[in-house]
Amino acid sequence: MFFHDSQLQYEVRVDKPNPLFAKMLQQAIGGIEGEIRVCLQYLFQAWGARGPAKYRDMLLETGTEEIGHIEMLATAVALNLDNAPLELKESMAREDGMVNAVLGGMNPRHILSSGLAAMPVDASGVPFDCSHVYASGNLAGDMYANVTAESTGRTLAVRLYNATDDPGMKDMLSYLIARDTMHQNQWLAVIEELGGLGVHPIPNSFPQEMENGDYNYNFMSTLRDESKQPTEGRWTHGESLDGRSNFSTTRQPGVPMPLLGEARPKSGAQREQINGNNY
Amino acid sequence: MFFHDSQLQYEVRVDKPNPLFAKMLQQAIGGIEGEIRVCLQYLFQAWGARGPAKYRDMLLETGTEEIGHIEMLATAVALNLDNAPLELKESMAREDGMVNAVLGGMNPRHILSSGLAAMPVDASGVPFDCSHVYASGNLAGDMYANVTAESTGRTLAVRLYNATDDPGMKDMLSYLIARDTMHQNQWLAVIEELGGLGVHPIPNSFPQEMENGDYNYNFMSTLRDESKQPTEGRWTHGESLDGRSNFSTTRQPGVPMPLLGEARPKSGAQREQINGNNY
Amino acid sequence: MFFHDSQLQYEVRVDKPNPLFAKMLQQAIGGIEGEIRVCLQYLFQAWGARGPAKYRDMLLETGTEEIGHIEMLATAVALNLDNAPLELKESMAREDGMVNAVLGGMNPRHILSSGLAAMPVDASGVPFDCSHVYASGNLAGDMYANVTAESTGRTLAVRLYNATDDPGMKDMLSYLIARDTMHQNQWLAVIEELGGLGVHPIPNSFPQEMENGDYNYNFMSTLRDESKQPTEGRWTHGESLDGRSNFSTTRQPGVPMPLLGEARPKSGAQREQINGNNY
Amino acid sequence: MFFHDSQLQYEVRVDKPNPLFAKMLQQAIGGIEGEIRVCLQYLFQAWGARGPAKYRDMLLETGTEEIGHIEMLATAVALNLDNAPLELKESMAREDGMVNAVLGGMNPRHILSSGLAAMPVDASGVPFDCSHVYASGNLAGDMYANVTAESTGRTLAVRLYNATDDPGMKDMLSYLIARDTMHQNQWLAVIEELGGLGVHPIPNSFPQEMENGDYNYNFMSTLRDESKQPTEGRWTHGESLDGRSNFSTTRQPGVPMPLLGEARPKSGAQREQINGNNY
Amino acid sequence: MFFHDSQLQYEVRVDKPNPLFAKMLQQAIGGIEGEIRVCLQYLFQAWGARGPAKYRDMLLETGTEEIGHIEMLATAVALNLDNAPLELKESMAREDGMVNAVLGGMNPRHILSSGLAAMPVDASGVPFDCSHVYASGNLAGDMYANVTAESTGRTLAVRLYNATDDPGMKDMLSYLIARDTMHQNQWLAVIEELGGLGVHPIPNSFPQEMENGDYNYNFMSTLRDESKQPTEGRWTHGESLDGRSNFSTTRQPGVPMPLLGEARPKSGAQREQINGNNY
Amino acid sequence: MFFHDSQLQYEVRVDKPNPLFAKMLQQAIGGIEGEIRVCLQYLFQAWGARGPAKYRDMLLETGTEEIGHIEMLATAVALNLDNAPLELKESMAREDGMVNAVLGGMNPRHILSSGLAAMPVDASGVPFDCSHVYASGNLAGDMYANVTAESTGRTLAVRLYNATDDPGMKDMLSYLIARDTMHQNQWLAVIEELGGLGVHPIPNSFPQEMENGDYNYNFMSTLRDESKQPTEGRWTHGESLDGRSNFSTTRQPGVPMPLLGEARPKSGAQREQINGNNY
Repeated sequence: MFFHDSQLQYEVRVDKPNPLFAKMLQQAIGGIEGEIRVCLQYLFQAWGARGPAKYRDMLLETGTEEIGHIEMLATAVALNLDNAPLELKESMAREDGMVNAVLGGMNPRHILSSGLAAMPVDASGVPFDCSHVYASGNLAGDMYANVTAESTGRTLAVRLYNATDDPGMKDMLSYLIARDTMHQNQWLAVIEELGGLGVHPIPNSFPQEMENGDYNYNFMSTLRDESKQPTEGRWTHGESLDGRSNFSTTRQPGVPMPLLGEARPKSGAQREQINGNNY
Repeated sequence: MFFHDSQLQYEVRVDKPNPLFAKMLQQAIGGIEGEIRVCLQYLFQAWGARGPAKYRDMLLETGTEEIGHIEMLATAVALNLDNAPLELKESMAREDGMVNAVLGGMNPRHILSSGLAAMPVDASGVPFDCSHVYASGNLAGDMYANVTAESTGRTLAVRLYNATDDPGMKDMLSYLIARDTMHQNQWLAVIEELGGLGVHPIPNSFPQEMENGDYNYNFMSTLRDESKQPTEGRWTHGESLDGRSNFSTTRQPGVPMPLLGEARPKSGAQREQINGNNY
Repeated sequence: MFFHDSQLQYEVRVDKPNPLFAKMLQQAIGGIEGEIRVCLQYLFQAWGARGPAKYRDMLLETGTEEIGHIEMLATAVALNLDNAPLELKESMAREDGMVNAVLGGMNPRHILSSGLAAMPVDASGVPFDCSHVYASGNLAGDMYANVTAESTGRTLAVRLYNATDDPGMKDMLSYLIARDTMHQNQWLAVIEELGGLGVHPIPNSFPQEMENGDYNYNFMSTLRDESKQPTEGRWTHGESLDGRSNFSTTRQPGVPMPLLGEARPKSGAQREQINGNNY
Repeated sequence: MFFHDSQLQYEVRVDKPNPLFAKMLQQAIGGIEGEIRVCLQYLFQAWGARGPAKYRDMLLETGTEEIGHIEMLATAVALNLDNAPLELKESMAREDGMVNAVLGGMNPRHILSSGLAAMPVDASGVPFDCSHVYASGNLAGDMYANVTAESTGRTLAVRLYNATDDPGMKDMLSYLIARDTMHQNQWLAVIEELGGLGVHPIPNSFPQEMENGDYNYNFMSTLRDESKQPTEGRWTHGESLDGRSNFSTTRQPGVPMPLLGEARPKSGAQREQINGNNY
Repeated sequence: MFFHDSQLQYEVRVDKPNPLFAKMLQQAIGGIEGEIRVCLQYLFQAWGARGPAKYRDMLLETGTEEIGHIEMLATAVALNLDNAPLELKESMAREDGMVNAVLGGMNPRHILSSGLAAMPVDASGVPFDCSHVYASGNLAGDMYANVTAESTGRTLAVRLYNATDDPGMKDMLSYLIARDTMHQNQWLAVIEELGGLGVHPIPNSFPQEMENGDYNYNFMSTLRDESKQPTEGRWTHGESLDGRSNFSTTRQPGVPMPLLGEARPKSGAQREQINGNNY
Repeated sequence: MFFHDSQLQYEVRVDKPNPLFAKMLQQAIGGIEGEIRVCLQYLFQAWGARGPAKYRDMLLETGTEEIGHIEMLATAVALNLDNAPLELKESMAREDGMVNAVLGGMNPRHILSSGLAAMPVDASGVPFDCSHVYASGNLAGDMYANVTAESTGRTLAVRLYNATDDPGMKDMLSYLIARDTMHQNQWLAVIEELGGLGVHPIPNSFPQEMENGDYNYNFMSTLRDESKQPTEGRWTHGESLDGRSNFSTTRQPGVPMPLLGEARPKSGAQREQINGNNY
């Protein structure tokens, strides 16, 4: 159950409104690296959590924090759209293309669809789609999904920070970057608590003797020229990271491809596929 | 540049064709945990790789391996659809609902759209959408995305293994599970080579003194009742996992929410939003 | 800024778990009539609100309430999936199709992707897509969107109530139906406060003398046979609902269709489209 | 059954072609506020109409009118693309960025995919997706959906009108704005005929005594600080708009959150989630 | 400009309503092989037609015909849903699974979302998405797209015909199959009029001497083992179908892969990618 | 099973990097006319091929070739993004809009999401969606789909060729255009081998006497004014292209539209729809 108060989690200030930056900020709202995604991801992981309750409780906390990040960014987009041009005054023939440049560069739907406000879309205007909410029911797998989300999230925030020279926006982003630092560490801490690298292979509840033991710790090279060796790396020699075996290299096994049966008469194929005739 | 031969990477055998299992297998082809996703993800990471070339080369190898996994699974789907019912013979009023049960449980598009063959869709029939190809240009972030993909992928393969009692399918899945074991270890090996937990916070190229130092290593509790403490865990105390600070706990800072300006006359709002009048 | 506590807004109890009902409940989570949609819709309307602040504040309240509804429904789905079959034991040839019937009728991704938990998808397994978050920047238009959302939402809840005979689920749904009743009234109350039918035509800030006065209060019949009259209704006579004119009927005006210019040589058309020659 | 003739419903004239305006106009074709949506929405409502036939007949009329609006807008887009640049002549280093500005601002797919013609996409280039066709089988709910569609549609048309200074485009838009005025009134007239506010709560066929009577006419405040009162409005006091009760205010009830059961051994979870052990 | 009358183009009669067949029929409405697609495809091709006007006029005719096909199929879905079960009476434990089988096999949204009516979705419940509307501005290319659409459309209709034993449905489908026969021939007739195989390579307006003359009429083998020859076929020898050259076989040329530059300091990459250092 | 070597299929060279051209090139990667589509389309057709094996083998060859085309184009995008601006230095008020023009015209996700690399999206930034992979199980229908794909693909490549004046890019595109020429001819060659126009109507395995013989070779005019004749063309007279009949013209048959039954009490409709009462 959720509550709010009429505060932002952290100050949002825009010194020089810029509708092009508004478009870029949308990536942090509705992009796959954005805040709607992490918010829903942590909440859905919490709501489906089976096993120790402490993880559910922690996921609820951070999922709730993230709603406030969407709120901050949505506010930032709206403030960057103050005074945005509403009129495409100049024809394409005019020499000074400035209004066109800003209007062409903006997300036109910030004018047409939202009335100068944020939308749950990314920087290209593509709506967020909840297939990106990773909640697999496997706690360790989900923690890696969360580290990934916060890593791409912090990378995005850093790119936005570098893109702007607005002091207010830089301050807000330095806060969001800091939170991403914490969250990366937080999900790693859960992995440590679960056993660190020993959680692998995920899921660890599957009896490993039932997997094919000839191909589970070998780097498989697909180089066409078998006389060449694949580039060496930590993944081609030494103990495997899960501590259960040693790395080696191999080639693809290869077996003959089975022929599918002929098409059946009522399957909608061409007659020629049904008779398997004289080609 | 790519090559093929007319072999499967590993044997695909279906002892008792089952169109319901064909539907479930689709998740491993076109689902977000599936093989189209990892295939394209590793290839796009390779094609955009900036920095040490060895990682690009390795990504190309494994991306190429994965094309062969799509091929194996597509073959498995087609074999499971041999002899699938094409006719909805019985009306809903008939007592014995068996044909309806199988036809109702199948993906109807296996009959209607593909002619008893695999499609690039998931187990619900939703087409794969390439927004799930994570390739951020940040090598460490991408490795975590890859560990995640292989973890959810192995979880899916284990669930499919448990769902079927077909010996051929169990053998194929034991091979794919093994490859997922290797790939989890492989991406972890790259992270180790890059510095292990020292790669955090990702991206590590951003000067950390520019992030807000008051909020980057604190678990932020959103519990409504501030007299309660958040559940303790590895993430609330001790050294942070990146080794750069210590965990503590905090509350959301909170600042007053700014009022957006009134709507502008040409923005398509209601008159009442423009005057800011007497409500 | 948001807070939570570890309670559900209202009791969620499942007496007889049923994975088919779990699938149906998903419509109320990730469907277009569902709770993710209203939650994000009200919050985004709040975050972009320009004009009297009281509406922003109220939208925040109800948006926050709706997060708790997603939570209740996600819990209901997980409880309905307890004990769901994980194994497709029987081949399609077996006479007793029961396991197949349940497994075929379930959302297979409840087994394969979420580990017996809710997902942000609808009853067909299609992920929620945020293009359904209506927040136009026009307060009156948005209120109608909200009445619509709560009307289709209550209709859905009623259909779910009728579909189940589980007492726990019926009790939960009777609560959600009640909240939808309130919310329909709530958004209508805003419309009344804004002026009732006088808010029309929306947006009311556009000078109506700039619209084409010959076609703004006429029912336009497209009946092929012009000797027939369109069916009479309130919309063909009497005062228009906005009180600004009277209804009448008319036909489509009709003007000759302009010919587009020929294709240009570098536009990728066929040569025959460029010359406009002798066909 | 449908017919056409080779006329446009109303004149479409472009005095100064502008490819940036072509991009903006796409929102009125393939956007969620656009004409494909209302056209299909009214037709699908008609084709599923159960109950008095007069509504089906009227929906067919207006759905047919809307096909002609798509046609007008598609023509307008093509005319605005006449003479659009096909060549990206200048490198990014050139000082005069005009060609780049226009080409950068255009929808590149107007060159690459359609050959200077309209597409069924919105102003961001996102294809229209038919999940936006609201046809719930509940006549009153659908009428509200239609009022919403025409309200956001007229808001969009007004914004396009304000954005352009092309006299031909302004004339076409003044016609479409007029039709949206009529259609808002038309759907409101159906609501009046059905009983006005008495149609609420929608659906009115559900016996209201089966809904939870403690929570169906109360504004629910989620303010964290319970000592604060929610902002007052028409929705916190007085008779409810459906005339069936009186408004009051309340708080979220709140009940303890149930613990989901442990994960099951074959569900693909981590071992640690199955034992519920010593964390 | 469009007109209608209150008739169906051809009789739609359902002798034994079957909600599973209703689900299957949806593929012909909202599937990629379905009628919404061809309807919009022909109309958008017409509205963007540049060149001889006769093709625009013909496309308008057939696009208008197709609206009537959507109408017929939507009616067929609604009639198949008459008397569909609305209640999931039986728990999964009951022995007789019939109600579950039908409800599990139905599209649950036919109950929950549309109130026993058609929706613009496919047989899996995935909404139609207008990216499938092919209108490239190249007349010959579009005619091939249309032949394709009618071929997959007729294949789908044949599969539906085979799936049902309802006499009314078989009669309706025999009509739709007939129309698909005509439309295949119709688009082929346009290709003949444009020059038959001489329209290739499409677009024929590009001076063919500007394409790479070493690789435009050779079957390129990607067989890994270069000592093997690709399977022979009409495409490996003899005159090319466009009559402009002769077929031969070749291998992939192959050139060294360029190294992308190192990552730049502000690009959000890892430090290790920027220095290109000693890994 | 697949292999690679570290070569590109053909040289990719960018003389003057241009981020706007990078955005345009994305259409050839992730657009519906692009290379991901043809690659997956040919491979899925191969993996589901029933009937003569030679077609499966050929499809594997060309599908494998296309992976290399994605690789070439992804490399071209990355090279065009070298030195792209990362900073939105100028506010919208500055007179010289050049940086804004380039940044506004670029795909912002090339900076924010991929770190200056290609993504599997189109020129508008919309991700590729695998519903565009046409593999119907009908060989002739699929060959037409392939001709279509290569026709729109070559049209796109020609438009890109015309848009750029970069010699390296023109050379790469002249190669891809050549391959599209071959592939158009290749799929036509299969159609010839299958019987040329005699493959129609597709599928040819359906007994044509079961289709409605009154409407299968007639152009159906939907002109409102029945006194007008439809425009004449090859499709209105002479032998049908499949050689099985002669073309003629006709009108839509037309039958009365059936009334759907009233809504049922538990279906969630309005009471007024259930009683069918006095409106």
